[in-house]
Amino acid sequence: MKAIWLENQQLQLRTDAPIPEPQPGEALVRVVCAGICNTDLELLKGYYPYTGILGHEFVGIVEQGSEELIGQRVVGEINAACGECRFCVTGQPTHCENRSVLGIVNRNGAFAEYLTLPIKNLHLVPESITTEKATFTEPLAAALEIQQQVQVRPDDRVLVVGDGKLGQLVAQTLALTGCDLLVVGRHQEKLANLAKRGIKTNFVEAVTERAYDLSVECTGNPEGFAIALRALRPRGTLVLKSTYSGQLTFDASSLVVDEITLIGSRCGSFPPALNLLATGQVDVEPLIQARYPLGEGLAAFDHAQKRGVLKVLLEMPT
Amino acid sequence: MKAIWLENQQLQLRTDAPIPEPQPGEALVRVVCAGICNTDLELLKGYYPYTGILGHEFVGIVEQGSEELIGQRVVGEINAACGECRFCVTGQPTHCENRSVLGIVNRNGAFAEYLTLPIKNLHLVPESITTEKATFTEPLAAALEIQQQVQVRPDDRVLVVGDGKLGQLVAQTLALTGCDLLVVGRHQEKLANLAKRGIKTNFVEAVTERAYDLSVECTGNPEGFAIALRALRPRGTLVLKSTYSGQLTFDASSLVVDEITLIGSRCGSFPPALNLLATGQVDVEPLIQARYPLGEGLAAFDHAQKRGVLKVLLEMPT
Repeated sequence: MKAIWLENQQLQLRTDAPIPEPQPGEALVRVVCAGICNTDLELLKGYYPYTGILGHEFVGIVEQGSEELIGQRVVGEINAACGECRFCVTGQPTHCENRSVLGIVNRNGAFAEYLTLPIKNLHLVPESITTEKATFTEPLAAALEIQQQVQVRPDDRVLVVGDGKLGQLVAQTLALTGCDLLVVGRHQEKLANLAKRGIKTNFVEAVTERAYDLSVECTGNPEGFAIALRALRPRGTLVLKSTYSGQLTFDASSLVVDEITLIGSRCGSFPPALNLLATGQVDVEPLIQARYPLGEGLAAFDHAQKRGVLKVLLEMPT
Repeated sequence: MKAIWLENQQLQLRTDAPIPEPQPGEALVRVVCAGICNTDLELLKGYYPYTGILGHEFVGIVEQGSEELIGQRVVGEINAACGECRFCVTGQPTHCENRSVLGIVNRNGAFAEYLTLPIKNLHLVPESITTEKATFTEPLAAALEIQQQVQVRPDDRVLVVGDGKLGQLVAQTLALTGCDLLVVGRHQEKLANLAKRGIKTNFVEAVTERAYDLSVECTGNPEGFAIALRALRPRGTLVLKSTYSGQLTFDASSLVVDEITLIGSRCGSFPPALNLLATGQVDVEPLIQARYPLGEGLAAFDHAQKRGVLKVLLEMPT
């Protein structure tokens, strides 16, 4: 089968990748649409030494493994957990000590004609959600993880730093809390997407210092982190939503004196994300920047890596 | 009056410092005992550009300003708040935007014969607490601030990194929760203080990685921070209890992937600390390493700066 293969920080389009064999408890899924995420771009830069098929945002059709699901459109949670370690038994499978992660750790990913995942990771896509929109379930779930970790109060002043793919989803979910939200970025046209939905936006230079109760860093760069930190009032909370390929340096004394809380945030659960897509409360359509067939996956990556580009989708014609 | 004066990172013993005039709402306090804290040593290294009399841990006798308190032994909260800013009106006076801080920010400190503080900052010292012990009220309150910020559960695995003055107080307060506590340090004799109280101790090399629910960094150096971070399980919490004179560098991606929470922690409220001292549930006696008269304050600082030294007290003979 065709697949986008990463090895030694080099991408290649393979046509000879074997169709994966589902293990007991797993399903074979034919991928119909997949999205390129910043984590894919970070993996390409060497953030984590992964070799294999990339991709973890997808919609597919189940072909084997579950009577109930065969022929159905599904999305899939990306952490394949052991079910037995201290994290699994305490209801935290995304932190399973023995996990593989689709297209990230020890498990071939979604930029291919087929993938396998545990059946329990799969979620039916409601008919009302188009396949392209459903491809955003994984990053939207990651955005919602913030509210799983931090109570966002309606009278909180909240700042989202970054107007990229993730920043846009985070902003849309936070806006639903009714909080006093500002999104800052560097791209007029991306900020305009949010402004159309009634979300306050501005350029990063406009951020008031020591003013926000909560800031969410969605840029993945040290400048974004510094802006998010300076924006916080004493006892404020900074959520780190992006992975970084390097080290971060900060003034630890200011964190102590101002009693700031810093929280790392990763994967979230899928059902709330599917709910928001089904009811149209989050609109992902404006985030789609381009569509490529899987066979032109390398060109799709070139496109996704350009500065200021939002979501690039890979589509597998049936 | 005599006072230990800091200017341009130089200490001097002044004998000509004016006795301070209490402002409306303030009391004049004759200092009888004061403790040298690591923050004093950091100020000397230039952590914050302060000029004036150092010292913020003290016991004194009220001489003017409050009918009720005159002649009484008191300790004093160190943040003098405006009572009107957004932090004061929301019950967070330690984060007052207009605050002065005894011996740290815009307010002469306790290494002197007299100091002034707002009357509302003062707390009577119960008779059962000796003056030397009561001098530990301020750092003990800072240790208790951790439990104001983080719920410490009896079944939590907790690590304290650092066997110095602050680490010892933090360890003793955390031990009272019944949690599974380990304190690591580099000094056999300091760890022995804690072991005598039934607290588990070891050298820093013995820390199991990815094992602790909560770690508290009390060393103020980057190595201590790295140990505290590596020790945490995914979704664990790291409390930063020490101020740092430099920048900290860390792997932000690991914080995101493991969804770690980092919390800065500073001053706490005095009444719970006085309770623990009065009931003897925290024993500060073994922390006292040396006593100097105020007039030998420079020698006291030399002593306090030696590696491995615990609390050095300045005493003002009456």
